[in-house]
This record gives sequence, C-alpha cells and structure tokens, in this order.
Amino acid sequence: MTTPLNERRIANAIRVLAMDAVQKANSGHPGAPMGMADIADVVWREFLNHNPTNPQWPNRDRFVLSNGHGSMLQYALLHLTGYDLSIADLQQFRQLHSKTPGHPELGYAPGIETTTGPLGQGIANAVGFALAEKTLAAQFNKDDLSVIDHFTYCFLGDGCLMEGVSHEACSLAGTLGLGKLVAYYDDNGISIDGEVEGWFSDDTEQRFLAYGWQVLKADGHDADALRAATLEAKAETAKPTLIICKTIIGLGSPNKQGKEDCHGAPLGNDEIALTRQALGWTEEAFVIPADIYAAWDAKDKGAKSEAVWNETFAAYAAKYPTEAAELKRRVSGELPATFAAQADAYIAEVNAKAETIATRKASQNALQAFGPLLPEILGGSADLAGSNLTLWKGCVGVQDNPAGNYVHYGVREFGMTAIANGVALHGGFIPYVATFLMFMEYARNAVRMSALMKQRVIHVYTHDSIGLGEDGPTHQPVEQIASLRGTPNLNTWRPCDTVEAAISWKSALIRAEGPTALIFSRQNLPFQARTDAQIADVAKGGYVLAKEKGELKAIIIATGSEVSLAMEAYAQLEGVRVVSMPCAEEFVKQDAAYREAVLPANIRARVAVEAAHVDYWWKFVGLDGRVIGMTTYGESAPAKDLYQHFGITTDAVVAAVKEITA
Amino acid sequence: MTTPLNERRIANAIRVLAMDAVQKANSGHPGAPMGMADIADVVWREFLNHNPTNPQWPNRDRFVLSNGHGSMLQYALLHLTGYDLSIADLQQFRQLHSKTPGHPELGYAPGIETTTGPLGQGIANAVGFALAEKTLAAQFNKDDLSVIDHFTYCFLGDGCLMEGVSHEACSLAGTLGLGKLVAYYDDNGISIDGEVEGWFSDDTEQRFLAYGWQVLKADGHDADALRAATLEAKAETAKPTLIICKTIIGLGSPNKQGKEDCHGAPLGNDEIALTRQALGWTEEAFVIPADIYAAWDAKDKGAKSEAVWNETFAAYAAKYPTEAAELKRRVSGELPATFAAQADAYIAEVNAKAETIATRKASQNALQAFGPLLPEILGGSADLAGSNLTLWKGCVGVQDNPAGNYVHYGVREFGMTAIANGVALHGGFIPYVATFLMFMEYARNAVRMSALMKQRVIHVYTHDSIGLGEDGPTHQPVEQIASLRGTPNLNTWRPCDTVEAAISWKSALIRAEGPTALIFSRQNLPFQARTDAQIADVAKGGYVLAKEKGELKAIIIATGSEVSLAMEAYAQLEGVRVVSMPCAEEFVKQDAAYREAVLPANIRARVAVEAAHVDYWWKFVGLDGRVIGMTTYGESAPAKDLYQHFGITTDAVVAAVKEITA
Repeated sequence: MTTPLNERRIANAIRVLAMDAVQKANSGHPGAPMGMADIADVVWREFLNHNPTNPQWPNRDRFVLSNGHGSMLQYALLHLTGYDLSIADLQQFRQLHSKTPGHPELGYAPGIETTTGPLGQGIANAVGFALAEKTLAAQFNKDDLSVIDHFTYCFLGDGCLMEGVSHEACSLAGTLGLGKLVAYYDDNGISIDGEVEGWFSDDTEQRFLAYGWQVLKADGHDADALRAATLEAKAETAKPTLIICKTIIGLGSPNKQGKEDCHGAPLGNDEIALTRQALGWTEEAFVIPADIYAAWDAKDKGAKSEAVWNETFAAYAAKYPTEAAELKRRVSGELPATFAAQADAYIAEVNAKAETIATRKASQNALQAFGPLLPEILGGSADLAGSNLTLWKGCVGVQDNPAGNYVHYGVREFGMTAIANGVALHGGFIPYVATFLMFMEYARNAVRMSALMKQRVIHVYTHDSIGLGEDGPTHQPVEQIASLRGTPNLNTWRPCDTVEAAISWKSALIRAEGPTALIFSRQNLPFQARTDAQIADVAKGGYVLAKEKGELKAIIIATGSEVSLAMEAYAQLEGVRVVSMPCAEEFVKQDAAYREAVLPANIRARVAVEAAHVDYWWKFVGLDGRVIGMTTYGESAPAKDLYQHFGITTDAVVAAVKEITA
Repeated sequence: MTTPLNERRIANAIRVLAMDAVQKANSGHPGAPMGMADIADVVWREFLNHNPTNPQWPNRDRFVLSNGHGSMLQYALLHLTGYDLSIADLQQFRQLHSKTPGHPELGYAPGIETTTGPLGQGIANAVGFALAEKTLAAQFNKDDLSVIDHFTYCFLGDGCLMEGVSHEACSLAGTLGLGKLVAYYDDNGISIDGEVEGWFSDDTEQRFLAYGWQVLKADGHDADALRAATLEAKAETAKPTLIICKTIIGLGSPNKQGKEDCHGAPLGNDEIALTRQALGWTEEAFVIPADIYAAWDAKDKGAKSEAVWNETFAAYAAKYPTEAAELKRRVSGELPATFAAQADAYIAEVNAKAETIATRKASQNALQAFGPLLPEILGGSADLAGSNLTLWKGCVGVQDNPAGNYVHYGVREFGMTAIANGVALHGGFIPYVATFLMFMEYARNAVRMSALMKQRVIHVYTHDSIGLGEDGPTHQPVEQIASLRGTPNLNTWRPCDTVEAAISWKSALIRAEGPTALIFSRQNLPFQARTDAQIADVAKGGYVLAKEKGELKAIIIATGSEVSLAMEAYAQLEGVRVVSMPCAEEFVKQDAAYREAVLPANIRARVAVEAAHVDYWWKFVGLDGRVIGMTTYGESAPAKDLYQHFGITTDAVVAAVKEITA
C-alpha cells in the first residue's frame, strides 16, 4: 500500500466516526464505511464537484451510496466536507427525528441524493442520474456554453451486484453509453452469510465488459491507484466505468476486519479501543482534529466551483435567455404557467368527442395532447411501447438522439423504474415508465421507493385485469391494484373512460409531491356522459356519476372497466346511485362533508364492483355490503367469456343490490 | 443451412400448427415457435428423454419454455410426440376450459412442467429443476445404481436475458456447477419494440462465461450444428451450458419473418397461405401427414426408456429397500406417516416451555424440531441466514456437499424464489426460502407464481414491521402483508408467539396444495397461555385467545407482535374478547358456525390492531370499527420509540374500544 500516512489518517476520520456512531446507536454497519474510507477520500476530496453550502446546485456531481447500509460513510463525508450535519447529528444516528437515519433517506440530511438500502437500486438510480445529465445536457448545452456537465459517482457492494436490478440497469447503461457514470465496486469478498465465493463467483470484470463498460481495477486502499483509475474513468466519455476495488471490510479493526462480523453490528467498545490503537487515532469518540477537518473541508472549493458555473450560466442566460429561463423552470419542477388551463381545455375537448376507446388509447391521446406542452417529459416502456401505447408523435428515442424524450428500456421493469426514480431525483424531468400491470410486480420495490422519496414518477400500467383476455392468469392482475393503493404517498388511478383518463394524466403531471400509478384497460370502455360539475369532481378521486332516481337506497361503487356494468345496473334499478372512484386515495383525502355527500354514512346497502381482488373494497362497503370482483386467478380466454365465467356482470350487480336492499 | 429437407419438413409441423392455432384463436405468438422449431426438433426428437404416456415418470428430462408466450411450440411438441393433447385441444388454443391456455400453465396440458410467461422465471425454474436433480441424485444414487439422472433443457429468449432474474439464477447456477442444465437462447435480435440492438447490446457469450457457464454457438436452423452443440453441452458435466442459437423469428413467413410483426399477433390468412407455399406445406390447417407424425412419435422410445429405468429402480429397491421406499415417498410428496403426531408433540413441548422469544427464533426452533423428521426440506436464505435464523443444526450447504439440504442463495431474492419453485415442481423436496419481509417485494412475482402453480414452497419472511427498528422505512414493511394475503392460494401466517409459530410451520409443511408465507418478528414477543382447545383452534387461522369477562361488547382482533397489546388492553377492559388471527385466509375458509362463534355478526364494536397497513382489516371490522396500524412509512429509530410514535400502543387499543362502545 502506497498511501501516504497523512492521507490514510484523513480517511481514518471516516473509520472512527462510523465505528463510534454505530457503537453509540448500538446498531448499524461499520464494515462498509471502514472498508471504503480510502476510496471515499479520493473521490470526495479530489474529484467530487459539489458545494456543501448549496446542496441543490443543479450542476453538482451526484453521489450515490448503493450499499446504503454503509450510511455512516456518507454521513461522515457530509459532516467532514462541510454540509449542515453536525457531530450532534451523527451522535443521533438511527434515532427518531434525527437527520441520520439507519439508511440514507432523501430529505433528512442535506446532500443525500437518493434513499438507498434496498440493494441494487442505488446503482440503478445512478444510471438514472447519468441518463438525466446526458439528456438535459443534450437538450440545453450549446456549442459554446455548457451549463449541464457533471459526473455521477456511485459506490456499490457485492449485494448490489448479485441483485438482478444491477444487471438490468448496468446493461442499459452500457447500451446508452453513459460515459459520465463512474462506479466503485467494494470488492471485499464478504456478504452477510460470510465469504461470498460459495454463492457469488461471477467474474465481474468480464460481466461488465459484456455490458460495454470500461472496467478498471485498483487496490481500494491505495489512493494513487484509485486516483489514476478515476482519471481514466473520467477520460472515457463513451462508456460508463466500473472500478473494481479490492478492499478489506472493516479495515482497521484488528480482530474483525475481513470478516462478516463487522458488517452489520457494532464492533464493541473493546474492539473499538483496539482499532483506535491500530489506526494510531488518539482522539476521543466524535472528536476530529482541526487539521483533518481542514483537509476535508470542501466549502471554499465548492463555492468557487459554483461561482464559476454561475458565471457560465449568466453568459448562457445573456445569449440564450429563453433556454435559460426554460432550464430554470425545468430544474425547479414548476410546470408551465399555462399548463393547467391547457389541460382543462383538452379535457373539455375529450368530453365533447365522447369516444368509446380503450383507456390505454385514451392515455396515448392524453400524452399526445400534453407531451408537446411539457418538454420535461421523459417517457419509456419496458419493451411494450406498442401495447402500452406510450409513444406519441413527438417521441424521439434517446438511443437515436441524446436530446430525445423517450427511452426504449428493454424488458427491464425493475431497472426501468429505478432508473426513472434517478431521473426524477436529478431534476429537469418528469419521467413516465410503462409495462403491463402484472409486471409492475417485477418493479414493485422501485415503485415503493418512488413513493417513499416523494418523486414525481408516473407509472403507466396497461392490461389491467381479466379484460386482457387470452394471455391468461400469468398476465391478469388480481391483487396488484390493492397493493398499489396500499402504498403510502402513491396515487393510483383506474379511469373508466376517456375523460377520467385525461384527468388522471393531468393529476399525475401536476402532482409534484409524489408518484402516480395510472391503470389502463386493454379493451374498449364506453364513454360516460358528465356535467361540468361532475368533470370537476373527477379530480377528487370519487364522485357521483349517476344520481339515484327517487330516494337513495343503495350505492354502487365502481372503477375503470366496471363502471359501465354499474351504469347498466343503474338503468335497471330505482333508488340506486353510482359512484365512480377512479382514485380512492384522493377520495379519502377530501373533507368529511364531500365524502358524506358522495357516500352517506347511513346508506349501508353498498355494492362495489371491480375486476380485481375484492378485499380492497370492504373499506367502503362494510360488513353489510357486497363486493363483486376476483378472489381467484384468472384464466386464458376471450375477455367477454372471462367476465361471464367470473361473474363480473351487470346481472350480478343488479342481483347484489336487490339482495342487500331486500 | 445444412438441414436435410426432410428434417426441415418435420420441424415445419410445429410452424404450421403454431401459425394455424394462433390464427384460429385470433391471438397469440407465432414468431417464437416458428423461429425455434428447428431447435425443438433436435432437442425433442433426439435428446429429450421422456415418456409421453407417463408425464409423471420421475426420472424424465425436464423441459422449460422460459419464453412462455411461444406456448404453441410446446403444445405442438406435446401433441406431435404423443402426449394426451389432441388436434381438437390445439384448436381450442386460448379458449376457456381448454388444455391449451395462452401461456403454458401447469395442470392444463400433460407434459407442462411449469407455468411460464413472466419472463426470466422459466430459466430460474430450470435452475431449480437442475438443482433438485443434482441434490436428489447425490442423496439417493449409489455407486452401482443411479436412479436419479436426468437433464433439464430450457428455451429462452431476449426478454428472459434482459430480465434481472436471469442474472440472479444463472449466476448461481454457474457457482453451483449445475452441469446437467442446457439452455438454448433464441437469439433472433427482435423484441416487441423492434430490433433489440437499440436497448440490448450485451455480449451474452461473455456474460455467461463470467457466470462460469460453458457457452456454445450454433445456427438455430442447422440441425447438425444444434446436435453437435447439444452433445458438447451434455459432455460438460461441471458447468451449465448456454447454446446461443442465431435464429430468424417467424421463419417461413415470407413477409413477416425476421420482424417484430410476427411476435405477438396472428400472421393473417393471406400470409399463412404464402407461408404454406414457402414451406412447401400442402396440408390444410391442423392436418399433419402420417410420416411426420411417425417421425415425431416418442411413445415407444419413451416407454422403453422408462422400462429400462424401472429395471434399474427394481434393482435399487432390491438392494436398498429403505432408500427406495424413501425416494418413492419423497417423490410422492407424502410426509412421513408419523409427522403430524410428532409435530403436535413438539407443539405441546413448546407450550410447556412458555418462552418469550422472537418469532424468528421460534421459527428456527421449529425448524430444528421438524428438520430432522423431514429430509425433503431444502432450505435457504438470500444472504440473511443469521438474521432470518433459517439455519438449524442439521443444515449442510449444497455448495459444500451436493447431498446437502441448505442453499446459500446470495443476495438474490427473486432468483431464489423462482429457483425454489423449480425445486418444488421437480418433486422430492419441500423448499423454504427466506429474506426480510420487505424484500419479498423483489421476489414478489415468483411468490405469486408459487401460488398460481399450487406448489408447496415455504416463504419465510422475518423483520416484519416497524418492530425491526433502526434500519428504517426502506426495511419496514407496511403494505406487504396485505399484498400477500390478497394472493390467491397463498396462506400467510403472522404468529404471535412460540406456539403459533410452531403451528404455522406445521401448517405450511402439511399444506401440499400450495405455498405459505411465514411472517416472523425480529423482536421478542411474550408467550400467551392457551388451553388445549385453543391450541387446536390455532390451525383454523383465527380463534378466541381471551374470552370476554361478562357480556360481549367488543372484539379486538390482532396478529403477531400486536397480540400482546390486545392482551394488555383486555386486562383493562370488561366485555371485550381478543381474537388472535395468525392466518386470515384459513379463518375465512372455516364454516359459518365457527366464524360466527369467533366473530359474532351482531358485535360491530371491533378494533383490529396490526403494525401494518390498516386497509386490510376493514374486511373484519366494518364501517363501525377501528383499525390501529400504519398508513405511512416507518422511520429509523429503536422499535419501542416507533410504536409510540405511530400510536400502536395498548393505550390506543383501550381508547379505541372505549370510543366505539361509548
């Protein structure tokens, strides 16, 4: 090891902060921070272009800790380089209301770019950051002035590489030639079960060469080697780079380094004392000498970097005022001021047209209307563009033109969704991604992460029920919609016709505070007539679509393709109201008076109908109600045969209403 | 192309059956069957060791169509080689109640080994078949007599290779050295969005070499080359083999071959006529000439193969009667006759011990008790053995000893679960797999597939709520339990103490008709005292744990870690009953009288408490009830702080009961 003593001492600040904070919390993961401290030293002190006093500087390099359990590495770095994260904050590691939760959580400590912990998704987020940078740069940079020009650095571990999502994301990153992505693999040979060779024997170099990456190797404790490799990585602009860093997990701990013992538990006070000794670190816990702080401090350097960029941006704004204003708007996440009115005008048009088409087609029409208004949209589908109907006329593939607005993600649902999360986190874009509703499950945890991180990612899911027909039970969702509806911070829309579909898209686009799942049918759905007041109420998630004739005796609640069954039943019944509930999450957020007006508490004769699992709807119909839907898997047959077979019919709705009002 | 004309003609039988059946159904995927027909010809006529008249022959080679949308390929093969699948069945392709659903579904046509369609999972199932074969062979074969000795053949496409699960499963297959797995990659360069080079540019040869596979290449329309490659594949016994077959999708269709048009839609009558002409195929739709039938017929050859094996098995049974009987039992799926009584004795012991421990620890104890009784158990965890507590003293890693009973799956939740599905499908094993409950989501669709296929796979999920504490919201399940409970055919158990944990394991092990999810706590849970009658009722999924003092006024329903809160509330209240409901799916299957006895319909004052999403419980508490649980994400903090923070406390339960009974 050729690292000069003083450089190792600088890196040791991470090691002691990590082991001390984990010990104080009596839980956490010291191994990764201690093993990657020397890599972090090189990347953060020499390469990372950031400004600790302005974590939101748009052109900062992005840093992702994909092995998020090593959070103390990142917290130590943020503290040492000058972010607003104090020693007191580090001492609150893993405590309620602290800025330093167990895994890096977006919105808690400044400088955290994404929430990591679920393995493999961080590197996929990093691919999203790099894709966003490349696309935004291509859309805005001029030959003479580059305003978007930054790198994305990612640390990842064995676990990330074993996870399938790393395959999906890294394969696509290679195809897209994301040359400003630099990933450091913490090749320590250890995972929770022990030495990985018994279950992980990939030749990772060969694997990433197969993806079209540049692959370099460096001793992860040799700063010179890491420096040289990073320079080489940055010099290769056509390919992402993986630097495979041989490291020793928990380096510095005399009895635990190189072993799984130090991965996920405090070292213990005795071992910590021995480690201090071994490292030659004499300070008490949470005390960092001034010279070490000075060596890490990035505030001045960062402020200068940003100042230089501000000058560039000022020159850009002078020469290209329209583009500069647009870039500012894009990065701020504000929609164009005219958008809401334009969207409403489109919805009125759709209403006037009164078309009976599949809601996936209505979705495409909405994209066709809204896409030209919102250049921040970056669309895509997991190899189902023609089925999901996610291509509109203005779509240009980023594979063909780096300034494009559409990504052919390939058959990679999980990678796609985690990449889209990175795109949204980067800023400047509203990503939408698409697949069949069933294969949302492949991406399920990334959908959750978009909601946990409150990112405006639009998840388009078509082929939403047995209504897809012949492809059968492997493709027919049953329990999936309930799973989405139960996801905190996620809005799930299942529109019944063209108007609700257009409104669901508008709702998703204006919802800056979180993601939306849009669920569309494969089959045609009849248009429903509505008054202007009803159209206005659609955005409330649930509303009276058909008012009862005579005294209210029963309520039918329906969504999507089953609204037409409810309306057919309505035609045969007296005293029955139809409530369309395209977005139950929005409905329950309405005030009590509105909810009571739609679903009066004293009316207990309630029937819900949805071609999905029945269990979700007991919440609205109660113990005295009925739910018409699915409790089993679907079958392979034409859609109309399946609706009959599973008893999701107008007759069944009518019978249920009669039964509970008898 | 060197294929002799007659061999091509034989393969063309697949092409015409596929295009005709898809046309008749007016939906389906002709491209893959037409593109892979020549590969299928070689594999099925020359190599596949199977007996069409006994699809259950235990030593048959297994065949998996991982690109399951090409189902007509498999149906054509089953028909042509002599399985009980008629032309009339093919004519019912994709119709209700037919044997030929849109994707190959287990239990519909004889000879279908696994349900495929969700891409990438078929190859993972195939890895499971090969793992099961290797392990069963190591456990039962003798130096002089091999009774388990078969290959697993798998076809897969571009989509399977893009999916992350193929990375997980194939990486592990390489590490495990599954030499009797032979996979054929349909390298046709086309996916649904068009030519794959824009989104899939992996060097797949290099990728699989990185996994430690043997990789061969062959023209997928050259029978000689395919034959030679298959021989080479079979000769390599230490590594799985991938044969990369360059093919033309839809081969034979003059205007659509080589294009995405033929992937997922009927060719159309005109193009079918042109294809017949191009292929020189003069017969009408669904007519196969006798000489072609004769060339395909595998009944005699298969019967002879099985007869030879029967002789071997008879010799084995004569020399090793105990092993032979045990192998028969294992393959039949019957548990040892003594198991139920032994399990009950263990449960009584556990009850007598009255321990307060984490249910994950109680699970390990149950494994320690049941493991020695059930050598068919093949366990594993996704790199969390020490956290999931899935290792018991009799565990031997298959990595160390091929006759072992434990798989270190690595950080590969989806691959693990899909592999376990293959192991269960193979027969001879009851697999259990484990991860944190949150990361069930990574494996979610494979969990569903285990339930759709009715396989006895036991999914062990620990760290089941905010009770896991400091790891925070990325690790704390909220909506996951409801998602499992909504999965048809899956039983989900969340036991509250050692006794319920032991009973949940027994229930999972004896449940031959489907999978079970066992959900365990990280933290200690207090033991609950029960009468023998109550212990007997646990298996019913829900039962009265504490009978009301005085007249029944309200019911508290709880599961898992929240049962102790309910019991503490009970101690402070009159007229309140506590219902423990460890498995709601079992409870709702009980007869009406039992359900009424536990939850009398007239008692509407009901409070459910569970540290998971509240929505599931409205089904049991109704519009007048209360649910105490989660509606947001968790936080990073010690568990007791989180329970307070989120208001899941005894006081909250007491207050809710008082409120609704006031």
